[in-house]
Amino acid sequence: MHISSLSNPRIKHIVKLRERRYRDKEQTMIIEGFRSIYRAADNGVYPKELYICRDFFLGKNEDELIQKLQDEGGTQIFETEQNVFKKISYRDRPEGLLALTGYFRKQVDDLELSDPPLLVVAQSIEKPGNLGTIIRSADGTGADGLILCDKCTDLFNPNVITASTGMCFSLPIAEAASQDTINYLKENNITILSATPHADKLYTDVDMTGPIAVIVGAEQYGLSEEWMKQSSINVKIPMLGKADSLNVATATTLLLYEAVRQRQQ
Amino acid sequence: MHISSLSNPRIKHIVKLRERRYRDKEQTMIIEGFRSIYRAADNGVYPKELYICRDFFLGKNEDELIQKLQDEGGTQIFETEQNVFKKISYRDRPEGLLALTGYFRKQVDDLELSDPPLLVVAQSIEKPGNLGTIIRSADGTGADGLILCDKCTDLFNPNVITASTGMCFSLPIAEAASQDTINYLKENNITILSATPHADKLYTDVDMTGPIAVIVGAEQYGLSEEWMKQSSINVKIPMLGKADSLNVATATTLLLYEAVRQRQQ
Repeated sequence: MHISSLSNPRIKHIVKLRERRYRDKEQTMIIEGFRSIYRAADNGVYPKELYICRDFFLGKNEDELIQKLQDEGGTQIFETEQNVFKKISYRDRPEGLLALTGYFRKQVDDLELSDPPLLVVAQSIEKPGNLGTIIRSADGTGADGLILCDKCTDLFNPNVITASTGMCFSLPIAEAASQDTINYLKENNITILSATPHADKLYTDVDMTGPIAVIVGAEQYGLSEEWMKQSSINVKIPMLGKADSLNVATATTLLLYEAVRQRQQ
Repeated sequence: MHISSLSNPRIKHIVKLRERRYRDKEQTMIIEGFRSIYRAADNGVYPKELYICRDFFLGKNEDELIQKLQDEGGTQIFETEQNVFKKISYRDRPEGLLALTGYFRKQVDDLELSDPPLLVVAQSIEKPGNLGTIIRSADGTGADGLILCDKCTDLFNPNVITASTGMCFSLPIAEAASQDTINYLKENNITILSATPHADKLYTDVDMTGPIAVIVGAEQYGLSEEWMKQSSINVKIPMLGKADSLNVATATTLLLYEAVRQRQQ
């Protein structure tokens, strides 16, 4: 099917999906760009619909991906004019590929824990770019998964998907209330580790080789009191300049990779 | 002076400053929000003009800051209506403070090196958020400074300032061509260290206690060949999941903090 009109109802639908409320109601998310759509399909998340604009294609692999989606996922393809694609695209430089797919959700009990487990808990992260970067780094460290608590930014925000470079489709991500997450961690004997400027010990001076969940809180206010009370290991990151804290995704990455360093030794 | 009209020439001027070309021509940058303006003044960068909207003030310290800017910096104050301030603000939730100040530039020879030096060189970083986060992390590690090479994003982009949480005013930042930077590092016997997936050694297995410059390249394409040829220490970051790389600001932070860890031992 070919779409040339900006007032096509499918186009209006996609534009409205930028609003979280509409997205939640429709239980439908947007995946944009070759890399993210490829990663999604690679993890069994096939789009229901794919909107393409050949004028914006960057490489030579687009047709192969489109074929794969049609054959394996039964994806419906819509070709669009340039101006139509620009309207639905989130990007300054669109790649001519935009997909719609249903929400997917996991519970904490769906997570598979390795021995020893390494988890990340992100509480009330506000910025999609930060949540996406945390997902990308958690993947990098081979963490068992991410638990989203008291979420502010939803996992299905297109900027989360982009910043995660599609890792949101491969990293196991569960959503849970804080108290349920705390119970889950206790039941599984997983130690809660958090970073706070008031800690006595440096993050490089505590043992991270055991079962650990790294907990990180909101950009502005940090972790809630509920979580701070539950934290068994408090660590600080050296701040040797004028700033009093690091970006939350950056700090999370430091903690996770310190666990990797210790475990690899 | 009170501004109530959206067509006031000063307001139009500020809106145009969002374009890099106009900003460069005017050699004028926008600093928005309490924290960034405070950091700027704290480092001797006083705005020429400050636009305020009391309705958006969040705290109780705004008046003290305004007084300080007037007294110490001779800053001119303009009060605006809500709709006017919303027009000039970059933020979803404006804090009612927006300042204009002149560009400030440093050369590599302006950098003061500690013993042993720790520097960051950022080549062709594209995203303002990434450059700002690199600046914030460099400050955190107490690095001697940042050198911007072949810049894509300019230091005076408001999103760089915000993401750096104002650290762009305290961290020494020089701009230079790649070849001049390479010459400067050689003259000062500073070893060039870069991360590449093709390296043999892990970043945690090389000695970073000597004089080091961590070099990082563009989000999409990494470091240029010119830089890769000059790199004396190549390291890799373990990628234990499905992604083949980390976010550039995150990777930079890992390398810099590994130097801190080794130097603190």
